Amino acid sequence: MPEVSQRSARAHSSPIRKLAPFADQAKQAGKQVWHLNIGQPDIRTPENALQALRDARIDVLAYSPSGGVPSYRQKLPHYYQKFGIQVSPDDILVTTGASEAVLFALLACLDAGETVLTPEPFYANYLGFAGMAGVAVKPLPTSIADGFALPTVADFRQALSPDVRAILLCNPNNPTGTLYPEAMLRALAEVVLERNLFLLVDEVYREFCYGDTPFFSALQLPGLEEHVVVLDSVSKRFSACGARVGAIVSRNHTLLTAIRKYAETRLSPPTYGQIFAEATLDTPEQYFQTVKAEYQRRRDLLFSRLSAMPEVICYRPDGAFYVFAQLPVDDADRFCQWLLEAFSHNNQTLMLAPGSGFYATPGQGRQEVRLAYVLNCDDLSKAMDCLAVALQQYPGRSSVVAPAALYSMS
Amino acid sequence: MPEVSQRSARAHSSPIRKLAPFADQAKQAGKQVWHLNIGQPDIRTPENALQALRDARIDVLAYSPSGGVPSYRQKLPHYYQKFGIQVSPDDILVTTGASEAVLFALLACLDAGETVLTPEPFYANYLGFAGMAGVAVKPLPTSIADGFALPTVADFRQALSPDVRAILLCNPNNPTGTLYPEAMLRALAEVVLERNLFLLVDEVYREFCYGDTPFFSALQLPGLEEHVVVLDSVSKRFSACGARVGAIVSRNHTLLTAIRKYAETRLSPPTYGQIFAEATLDTPEQYFQTVKAEYQRRRDLLFSRLSAMPEVICYRPDGAFYVFAQLPVDDADRFCQWLLEAFSHNNQTLMLAPGSGFYATPGQGRQEVRLAYVLNCDDLSKAMDCLAVALQQYPGRSSVVAPAALYSMS
Repeated sequence: MPEVSQRSARAHSSPIRKLAPFADQAKQAGKQVWHLNIGQPDIRTPENALQALRDARIDVLAYSPSGGVPSYRQKLPHYYQKFGIQVSPDDILVTTGASEAVLFALLACLDAGETVLTPEPFYANYLGFAGMAGVAVKPLPTSIADGFALPTVADFRQALSPDVRAILLCNPNNPTGTLYPEAMLRALAEVVLERNLFLLVDEVYREFCYGDTPFFSALQLPGLEEHVVVLDSVSKRFSACGARVGAIVSRNHTLLTAIRKYAETRLSPPTYGQIFAEATLDTPEQYFQTVKAEYQRRRDLLFSRLSAMPEVICYRPDGAFYVFAQLPVDDADRFCQWLLEAFSHNNQTLMLAPGSGFYATPGQGRQEVRLAYVLNCDDLSKAMDCLAVALQQYPGRSSVVAPAALYSMS
Repeated sequence: MPEVSQRSARAHSSPIRKLAPFADQAKQAGKQVWHLNIGQPDIRTPENALQALRDARIDVLAYSPSGGVPSYRQKLPHYYQKFGIQVSPDDILVTTGASEAVLFALLACLDAGETVLTPEPFYANYLGFAGMAGVAVKPLPTSIADGFALPTVADFRQALSPDVRAILLCNPNNPTGTLYPEAMLRALAEVVLERNLFLLVDEVYREFCYGDTPFFSALQLPGLEEHVVVLDSVSKRFSACGARVGAIVSRNHTLLTAIRKYAETRLSPPTYGQIFAEATLDTPEQYFQTVKAEYQRRRDLLFSRLSAMPEVICYRPDGAFYVFAQLPVDDADRFCQWLLEAFSHNNQTLMLAPGSGFYATPGQGRQEVRLAYVLNCDDLSKAMDCLAVALQQYPGRSSVVAPAALYSMS
């Protein structure tokens, strides 16, 4: 038998997927499993966009242009304008989800063997894409103690070894829900300019900001036109993860020309998804207000419930629909499996994403979990009932380790 | 300004796309441009599948499982069964077009720096995917003199340097339309076994076989269960290039497990496309018979018209919807541009794909072009009228160089 490549053998494997068989077994045994493990929104997709698909007149389901359907690209700047982001259609390349945007950006900004620096914990799939692109991920520690705030400029400077060609952020952050304020991004911009780096920013949760801090896009940073590459997607914004439509936005046209070669190689993003995505741009503003209010209620509920649990360390996240919490357990991977395998409360249990999967640094995230608030408040409340009881019953209960000790910067 | 990666700067750029601005100019000048340059079928997409999309009841456009919608995967073996291919749903992983299937297969079968061997001329985008995967493409010459038949076993053996981990075929072939008969594949299988290689076969044109030679899938080769990886797509089969749904089919589950990690990283193939693709499986057999008869008429017309042109070298292709022809011109890239820029016949011209783009060997394909017969016979005939006149008028007319001299095996 020919052997699979070494890179695929050592490729990142999703920590959530490993738990999937246990969730299936729990369901087969008749248990209600509350899914807080995946960022798949439960909110209804906008009806106007679903209807656009039904109304589309198609004789031949043809390739779209590699960079995206022109009418969609033409309209996108109006969407960005609402956030004070000035871009032209020429600054936008439509991709097959933000997933492809991440891969293309890594391929075009970094050569194999070079390094991308990213605050940790980070979106687990960045590791997978980096592996595909042959790029190393260098994690820069952040801590639950300050709500996973962006590291200081000094921390970034210290971490910038010569192999680092790009910094990758997710703002608002998955998995922590942390929103990076304008001042932090402006401070980081100086480092980016000084070291002539690419600044890749995944802004797919742009709409989901709940506090007083307004969202500030990296595309609004003056003087960084050649450095900033924004990775985007309609998945979370419109509860449309299955559309597989995203975008790369950058004013660096030399970079976009390079990326366009990758786009041409894969021919085109999905045509149906783009028809859908174009129609989402006509979604009434009321939709977002309702959706945002709903997520904010859930966040408040989750934060208040978690805060009330003894020895659970938590913070109030300002964005996205995640919270990262530290639990009094020996090992969150084990605890999450136990929840599905051995625990039940009123014949219910919950599925969480173990924190370790969001770290590249071995041993980190051992007591942490990511909770996605993609359930309505009633269900979320039942899930929290389960969690409270589970933490009392779990045989591996263990005191929380102070964040500073758990995560040394050395 | 930060510099783009060296790999993206030297990435393969589509030779057809370079001509696109000239085609646009010709159209703006009021010329009718017959497009024989791209494999975008003009045949209507099956109505039952288009209707399935209109009828789909979706509240939340969610991610599908990474390996594809289960009901679609369950039905696919029945499709393959029609070709005598015995596979189970567990042998199939749904991808975002064959494009993604090629990329994932290269990543999982080869490490960066290793080599894939493929007969030349080959589908131009293989070069792009190889670049993304950091894999080298080693071309194995084939010649128009024998209709681009598969090289002999001796040729393959000679080309198998130690860095070669896989052989990549396209059968029926894009860009040549050549169909590889069973006997040739069986002979090659011995080499694959002997050298313990992966055999990647792009079979997206499986339906389009016109001669007496039946299609024979690499999945039908006995003893090669661990070696064969078939790359597939609904794009050509159902005139549905925009669906972006393909598949990787292999009985090597160690390989599929490795590939599944890449699939999980990019989350899921497009949901709409998969609803469409599942519905295509209920397309009446009559659809294919009509479509195949139509393509066969076009092939016959194209072959007879090309054969009648002085000094044009051609062969009768048995599959796909392409023919590769050698023209009496100094440089096909120049000729193709001249067709769009300077030529017109009854205010019409045609767009062809220059042969050089399908070769990795520098200087090859200089007198060759690929013609895709994706126009109805009337339009195809008008396009051939244009070509006949153009070859008379072209200032760079030049005798055809004998294939043997043009393409030495050294």
